[in-house]
Amino acid sequence: MGLKLHGLALSTCTARVATAIYEKGQDFELVAVNLTAGEHKQPSFLAKNPFGQIPALEDGDLTLFESRAITSYVAEKYKDSGHDLNRHNNLKEAALVKVWMEVESQTFHPIIAAIVYQHLIAPLFGQKTDQAVIDANLEKLKKILDVYESKLKSSKYLAGDFFSLADLHHLPYIYYFMKSPWTSVVNDRPHVKAWWEDISSRPSFKKVAEGMTIGQK
Amino acid sequence: MGLKLHGLALSTCTARVATAIYEKGQDFELVAVNLTAGEHKQPSFLAKNPFGQIPALEDGDLTLFESRAITSYVAEKYKDSGHDLNRHNNLKEAALVKVWMEVESQTFHPIIAAIVYQHLIAPLFGQKTDQAVIDANLEKLKKILDVYESKLKSSKYLAGDFFSLADLHHLPYIYYFMKSPWTSVVNDRPHVKAWWEDISSRPSFKKVAEGMTIGQK
Repeated sequence: MGLKLHGLALSTCTARVATAIYEKGQDFELVAVNLTAGEHKQPSFLAKNPFGQIPALEDGDLTLFESRAITSYVAEKYKDSGHDLNRHNNLKEAALVKVWMEVESQTFHPIIAAIVYQHLIAPLFGQKTDQAVIDANLEKLKKILDVYESKLKSSKYLAGDFFSLADLHHLPYIYYFMKSPWTSVVNDRPHVKAWWEDISSRPSFKKVAEGMTIGQK
Repeated sequence: MGLKLHGLALSTCTARVATAIYEKGQDFELVAVNLTAGEHKQPSFLAKNPFGQIPALEDGDLTLFESRAITSYVAEKYKDSGHDLNRHNNLKEAALVKVWMEVESQTFHPIIAAIVYQHLIAPLFGQKTDQAVIDANLEKLKKILDVYESKLKSSKYLAGDFFSLADLHHLPYIYYFMKSPWTSVVNDRPHVKAWWEDISSRPSFKKVAEGMTIGQK
């Protein structure tokens, strides 16, 4: 019985999980959730995630939601295959992975998600892009990426000289952000640019990115 | 060489870490950070956390920040002493702990933090409380706690019939929220109320709460 991933290939949070599964050399069955029809708010999906958000992962009798919890589970369950995403054999390195996973979750994510939402998602729903929200968050993003630039001068990846969940969790939102007119925020910072080019060229993510079609002409 | 916790006893995020350390039967030296004097934005603190936020933990040559990453480290380092906070011997239970840790972090925290900020913190800085922000977030909080109520009917704690980091992470903000006029949001939901009374009466948190003095007359 394999992994069933309920979500959408174009969704950032589904893409985050899919990338982690591929990094561990595993595969999954994608079960599409029809958001337009409100399927995520129906009882059958709410039984998987009572908050009604994609993705959810079914692994036998275990059902999980929250993309960052799922990637952590996948990293631990398949710790001996594929790439070591959580540094499970080194308590200190594992702790630094968690630190930078939290930075992504608490500090980076709300800001880049607001920009991507206004630029790419709002128009899909017939909403007007709020440029003031974008501008305010671009300023915040620059300050955060200044810290990343400094960190990435001293180590190749965020938690150390190893690619981990801390880096992986950033992939989907930066990918969509790089379709915006503000790519200089990344490209003007040489270590951030090199890091982005490195992590986004991993085979796992290249495969996932093929399905991330929001904003494609 | 013991644990050094840089922060403030009254800070929610410092309290989160302190509770986890006590749960593991460990102790720490609290190193006060003078926020009023801007000490958290000075080079000596920025070397511990480049984002300039409390708390930070020093454990020998390892320095960590982000409260939820620190509690995870503490739970893992001291996994064989005190209370089992991360269900380290059970992959499925550990995964459910992570799911509900993410619910707290992504869904619960931004909402309750906005209420606590407006009600208790803004006045400390001479800012006017924005009641519209409180009202909007109270409505969101009720919906989230409806899901918690349903979950806590089927298990005593969020991730199962065991107290874990998932519950612990909620403690500091609910503690300050319960000093507000809107305690009925918790108390009107019998399973949420019982859960709150249970987790807040643990000796670890009672000790920590003594220092959580914001809003005391």
